[in-house]
Amino acid sequence: MSKFWNSKTLNIDPYVPGEQPKGIERLIKINTNENPYGPSPKVIEAIKNASDDALRLYPDPNGTKVREAFAKINGISIENVFVGNGSDEVLGFAFAAFFDKDKKINFADITYSFYPVYCKMFDVTYNILPLKDDLSIDVEDFCHCEGGVCIANPNAPTSLAISLSDIERILQSHIDDVVIVDEAYVDFGAESAVKLINKYPNLLVTQTLSKSRGLAGLRVGFAAGSTELIEGLDRVKNSFNSYTMDKLAMAGAEAALYDTEYFTEITRKISATRDRVSAKLKYLGFDVPESKANFVFIEHKTFKAQDLFPYLRSKGILVRYFNKEKIDNRLRVTIGTDEEMDCFLSVLEEYVNERS
Amino acid sequence: MSKFWNSKTLNIDPYVPGEQPKGIERLIKINTNENPYGPSPKVIEAIKNASDDALRLYPDPNGTKVREAFAKINGISIENVFVGNGSDEVLGFAFAAFFDKDKKINFADITYSFYPVYCKMFDVTYNILPLKDDLSIDVEDFCHCEGGVCIANPNAPTSLAISLSDIERILQSHIDDVVIVDEAYVDFGAESAVKLINKYPNLLVTQTLSKSRGLAGLRVGFAAGSTELIEGLDRVKNSFNSYTMDKLAMAGAEAALYDTEYFTEITRKISATRDRVSAKLKYLGFDVPESKANFVFIEHKTFKAQDLFPYLRSKGILVRYFNKEKIDNRLRVTIGTDEEMDCFLSVLEEYVNERS
Repeated sequence: MSKFWNSKTLNIDPYVPGEQPKGIERLIKINTNENPYGPSPKVIEAIKNASDDALRLYPDPNGTKVREAFAKINGISIENVFVGNGSDEVLGFAFAAFFDKDKKINFADITYSFYPVYCKMFDVTYNILPLKDDLSIDVEDFCHCEGGVCIANPNAPTSLAISLSDIERILQSHIDDVVIVDEAYVDFGAESAVKLINKYPNLLVTQTLSKSRGLAGLRVGFAAGSTELIEGLDRVKNSFNSYTMDKLAMAGAEAALYDTEYFTEITRKISATRDRVSAKLKYLGFDVPESKANFVFIEHKTFKAQDLFPYLRSKGILVRYFNKEKIDNRLRVTIGTDEEMDCFLSVLEEYVNERS
Repeated sequence: MSKFWNSKTLNIDPYVPGEQPKGIERLIKINTNENPYGPSPKVIEAIKNASDDALRLYPDPNGTKVREAFAKINGISIENVFVGNGSDEVLGFAFAAFFDKDKKINFADITYSFYPVYCKMFDVTYNILPLKDDLSIDVEDFCHCEGGVCIANPNAPTSLAISLSDIERILQSHIDDVVIVDEAYVDFGAESAVKLINKYPNLLVTQTLSKSRGLAGLRVGFAAGSTELIEGLDRVKNSFNSYTMDKLAMAGAEAALYDTEYFTEITRKISATRDRVSAKLKYLGFDVPESKANFVFIEHKTFKAQDLFPYLRSKGILVRYFNKEKIDNRLRVTIGTDEEMDCFLSVLEEYVNERS
């Protein structure tokens, strides 16, 4: 509280990121959906090559080469691509550009918790649509609400995805409003809506390199959409910060996008680990919604998440717990390496066995 | 224009950055106030060392180590330091946090052209205070205006600085409003107001690594101020993007801040070149305000800037021209290496001699 703050600063409700503990070497850190395998070696090489005297010059404010890479691997045109400082920034620009007090947005009650934060920041009216009891999105609700829509697909922290035909139904029900599909986790098993952008001018798809490309530390996100939506994002960005992407991030991002072989290998590996871990968790008495993401969202039939969370922590295993109605008996567990997940499972198994 | 844009997106007036030409190797690029000497070798080394598998993890959202470095070299506390993605972002957050329709801000008619852009973006009421005829700031005007203040010191593109005692007079006249001192160019000869932050809770000083540290390509900026101002910036930042600084930028920034020896050497070199170039420009018939920045803002007594600009361009020399009332007969010329400036001067000398 300060007399120097404006009323916005006083009333916003900032996002709280997952814990980034110091000294993580002794922890199994499966709390913030990071990729256990890290970036492609080609990314490291590209960054080292870009680390030179040319850092004295401003970067390309339009991120041409990295947008070109995203366009190429997705079979779309560069005019349909926006690049930003992580998909958080891209989403922030989208909320600021397409919604306001009069242009309402709809999103689920259980979804990425940054959405309502953006709304307060940019004075956007929002409407909450409750998930069904099984934590799935009620597609009918999303078709029949007034205003625009933001859907995380797969949704976080539920891990559940909806089909492209459901996305199309929602798009067709909102032809005058923007529909954002936040695909932060799409590469682990859901189907991307990027291929629909030429069919639906109201569709904006956001993606990130933080999860499937193992680059949370580099801050690179994208939006794909019609040229009018991309131009809207550009206008907002250039009214705030023309150069949000540094040269190193762009060099690394370009290399990451083109290394499809490495990308396919690590996402396949993570998905396989996830499916194996899910089966074992079910065996141990957990409810495990069918994850299409790099995490699972679990609830035990007997043991409370509020007890399991500190227990795991005491064993050096960091998972995420949301103290929020409807999901306050669940833990969100990122899929780590096979070794990490085996350790996690054996700690859980011991816990369950000792108490059963 | 698009039906999907909100009224803000339609009405904002985005900033247009200076030209970043492709194929600059054949140009003398003295148009965007970049540093000709590039970053310290220790920066390159630090970035290469940080380019590893740990990029898979999110960065420290609070930028603790880089804020600590800024605090140490400035003799202030880390709680008084904010770090962001270039000082453009930091300034954007400051406009968003401390000003609005009711909390007005004042700035000069000729100053960094991003200030009115932020105002449109964040619905801030602003008042323009004209510079004096000699392009200097009218300190009396800034003392007697209502609301907050933003002053670039040295000012851009004028290159002129005001004294710390003048800054203090302005601070004392606005004890209930925030006074931003934008010190993007302070390291080339002006006096920093950072040392005043503990005396004036309404003072926010912004700085950047883009100019004096030769790191325009890395996107790192700072604010120093009272804890309540820093907390205000944090609240806005965390309502928009928690991780605006990637790991590489933070590693490079930390190394840059600690290498004071290299920093002192290149800023001294640039200032010496500037003073030599200024003398020669005066000899050639130019008016050269006394620059405390890494650029000069010149006007010839006979020849028009509108003619000189394309002529220089035709000779491979890129400077900046602002087609704006009051300064439309001036060129802003960044101080490059001695070799670059000798080339610039001999092209100008030939032009002047041939036409005199």
